[in-house]
Amino acid sequence: MRHSLVLKVLSFLLVFIGGAILLPLPFSFYYNESPLGFLYSTGLCWILGFSGIILLPKVQKDIRSKEGFAIVGFGWLVFAFFGSLPYLFSGATTSMTDAFFETMSGITTTGATIFVDIEALPKGILMWRSLTQWFGGMGIIVLTIAILPFLGVGGLQLFKAEVPGPVVDKLSPRIAQTAKILWTVYVVFTALEIVLLMFGGMDLFDSMCHSFTTLATGGFSPKNKSVGFYSSAYIDYTITVFMIIAGTNFSLLYWLLKGQIKHLFNNGEFKFYVAIILGSSVVIGFILFSNNQYNLFESFRYSIFQVASLMTTTGFGTADYEEWSAASQLILLALMFIGGSSGSTGGGLKVVRLIIIIRYIYTELVRLMHPQAIVHVKLGGVTVEKKTLTNIGSFFMIYVLITASSTIVISLFGLDIVTSIGAVATTINNIGPGFGLVGPTENFAFLPDIVKWILSLLMMLGRLEIYTIVILLTPAFWKK
Amino acid sequence: MRHSLVLKVLSFLLVFIGGAILLPLPFSFYYNESPLGFLYSTGLCWILGFSGIILLPKVQKDIRSKEGFAIVGFGWLVFAFFGSLPYLFSGATTSMTDAFFETMSGITTTGATIFVDIEALPKGILMWRSLTQWFGGMGIIVLTIAILPFLGVGGLQLFKAEVPGPVVDKLSPRIAQTAKILWTVYVVFTALEIVLLMFGGMDLFDSMCHSFTTLATGGFSPKNKSVGFYSSAYIDYTITVFMIIAGTNFSLLYWLLKGQIKHLFNNGEFKFYVAIILGSSVVIGFILFSNNQYNLFESFRYSIFQVASLMTTTGFGTADYEEWSAASQLILLALMFIGGSSGSTGGGLKVVRLIIIIRYIYTELVRLMHPQAIVHVKLGGVTVEKKTLTNIGSFFMIYVLITASSTIVISLFGLDIVTSIGAVATTINNIGPGFGLVGPTENFAFLPDIVKWILSLLMMLGRLEIYTIVILLTPAFWKK
Repeated sequence: MRHSLVLKVLSFLLVFIGGAILLPLPFSFYYNESPLGFLYSTGLCWILGFSGIILLPKVQKDIRSKEGFAIVGFGWLVFAFFGSLPYLFSGATTSMTDAFFETMSGITTTGATIFVDIEALPKGILMWRSLTQWFGGMGIIVLTIAILPFLGVGGLQLFKAEVPGPVVDKLSPRIAQTAKILWTVYVVFTALEIVLLMFGGMDLFDSMCHSFTTLATGGFSPKNKSVGFYSSAYIDYTITVFMIIAGTNFSLLYWLLKGQIKHLFNNGEFKFYVAIILGSSVVIGFILFSNNQYNLFESFRYSIFQVASLMTTTGFGTADYEEWSAASQLILLALMFIGGSSGSTGGGLKVVRLIIIIRYIYTELVRLMHPQAIVHVKLGGVTVEKKTLTNIGSFFMIYVLITASSTIVISLFGLDIVTSIGAVATTINNIGPGFGLVGPTENFAFLPDIVKWILSLLMMLGRLEIYTIVILLTPAFWKK
Repeated sequence: MRHSLVLKVLSFLLVFIGGAILLPLPFSFYYNESPLGFLYSTGLCWILGFSGIILLPKVQKDIRSKEGFAIVGFGWLVFAFFGSLPYLFSGATTSMTDAFFETMSGITTTGATIFVDIEALPKGILMWRSLTQWFGGMGIIVLTIAILPFLGVGGLQLFKAEVPGPVVDKLSPRIAQTAKILWTVYVVFTALEIVLLMFGGMDLFDSMCHSFTTLATGGFSPKNKSVGFYSSAYIDYTITVFMIIAGTNFSLLYWLLKGQIKHLFNNGEFKFYVAIILGSSVVIGFILFSNNQYNLFESFRYSIFQVASLMTTTGFGTADYEEWSAASQLILLALMFIGGSSGSTGGGLKVVRLIIIIRYIYTELVRLMHPQAIVHVKLGGVTVEKKTLTNIGSFFMIYVLITASSTIVISLFGLDIVTSIGAVATTINNIGPGFGLVGPTENFAFLPDIVKWILSLLMMLGRLEIYTIVILLTPAFWKK
């Protein structure tokens, strides 16, 4: 591995982060807040970033596999570290741990927060907080559509087979073009949501914050009560629709913008994704209604909002689902693990993997009945390669093992069973709210520092498809 | 599928069950209890069984794959149904559901009970209850070592590669010989435990009951407080050792009886199995001691007993682990899913599958680092076949999916989250006690009937390696 190449790329990233940190400044000025926290942060990023660019030796640009892993892993770490500077320099928190946790939660589009009183924060900081998610979402789209398939991580190759989208086969100059198309989609839907939320009476600042974190399936809200603050059916349904959009494969959204809606309904993952959301919403809505918790319309409205929010791994809230029945909560917990679609900003296992897993199980059944039969797992009419199946199998296994062992590890620090399960589920799947003491009406502030670091690692593991990070933790990776 | 062949085999089974039901009679006479319940049950079994044998047409004996599945699945059902007659005819319970649940819990070596006051039951019934587990354990050894590999279920073929034991390659006349050897091992260890428990002051009846259910990793006890009733370190440790023995591959135990102890310590699964038990016991013991719950010796004694009991899927109790810390409980929950060794009477995923899964994940990491490298998963120096890996992969996936979906389904009937998780974990893994309202000091009596039927199905699914039962539930299986 050529360290100078990795460092050079990270230096460019630092310059970008420094620039991004300046974006909330208009709001700081408008609301008469001190801009110094942002300026100091940008200064530090730029000094280090430009030094790196100037001082590091020139290297060839073709990136090798190992270097790719190092850039992705350390890139996210660098963003989490330097992106936390505005929180520290502005005095929003004095804890390095808390600032790092909040930024990691932002750029991984998780949405778990350590702030107890969010509304007391300066507007500039709130905007930065939302922007970390928006940039994290952007990063993840390029990563999952262009970079991870090149690195061969987690079976995301199948994305290519399934979606007739603007997708490149390997890391190539065409990545820039693909990225531009996808980012255009991202920007257009963000802008659309801002406008629609303002129609509903939300002010520009809140509309921007919420739209940034909806499209990123992030879930940071500038309000303590999250979207529940507005108590508006229009706003609830608008955000529900955009959460569902954000959890959809962005290549499909590109075709949607081009008016070719048939691509959406020809897509197995999209159909299953929508079916799960609607099915779960109806079941939970029915339970809520029959328990007399809300009237019929409210039952469905609250049900589909929390279902879409947790399944797309956004994490906004309009109701305290911990007051719902055990069955409703367990359904939500399962949805948290299923997650969004491949090629979206959503986290979790991804719907397409669930489809493959179910078909994989089914072919095994057929094989048992007809030992001589040759059966293939198919997706969109195409046979899924053996390599991809192995990929998905091992991904599912490592996901389950890491979830189980981290739950045990964090419970060692005095958390109860439900809180431990909830905290791990919500961070590894990049959602935000969990269960127990980290439920939808609570926050992560009270946790011991060590638990916050572990959960930060889980957010990164989940966001970067596990293997990208696990590989960096093996001694073999660092051997010459 | 030739129905008459399946029915004929089931008729032989019925005759066997009728005979088995007579075994508790000496105890009924000794304790002056009515023998009628047993006699009626045997009468019914024999009338039906002999009628079947005589009336059904002769068929060729070579059993085809589909017939094998049908015999295994319906065999267990027939045993659960007719084995429940003594409970009903003796008046131990008037509920068909409860009697079926208790018998299924017996023959699947689970140990979950619907009896609230166990000590109030007639001795004959208690003996029958223990015997259902002992026969269930015997059945499972033959099934996993001889029949399931032939049917190709759940990757248990690898057993052959790993263990230099008295194992046959396919269903053949040599099965009878293998079965005899394994049953000898089973009987010898059962007798040994009876003697050792009597040394510790337990009477013959209780020693027999406990030894029958230890070797079967069943966990039914004739005492309300389970093994905790005796408050004896000697009895605790004796049973701990025998639980660990019962969770060991029976082919290895055969070599142990022959004095060839080196086979045990050359076996990867056995070493990992013992390491997990000791490691978990030390960690939980340390937590108990540091929480001042017991003194140092008691901490380890209670810790290793519950660890061995839950990991081997026996389910005896000497302490209420629900009073232990969340971390201890989560470790126990994880052990419940790992389960015993392959070729033992223990349930759960089995240690060997965990080993394969970990190596599978590791080879994926190597493959990501060196895309050109060809890496194989090895076990005991032998490369694990692709087919076996696929088997284990799909087994793990279906296990997780069934666990998650059943947890949701039973919670729909009003159970809380922890109880739902505990009830599913303890039945699918064939353990006995769970968490919450079905914890170690409680029983399953209060559950709605429908939940008892679902849990009975889960016991059968878990015991028969999932696929054996799932395959019977597919329409494709029943097509001509």
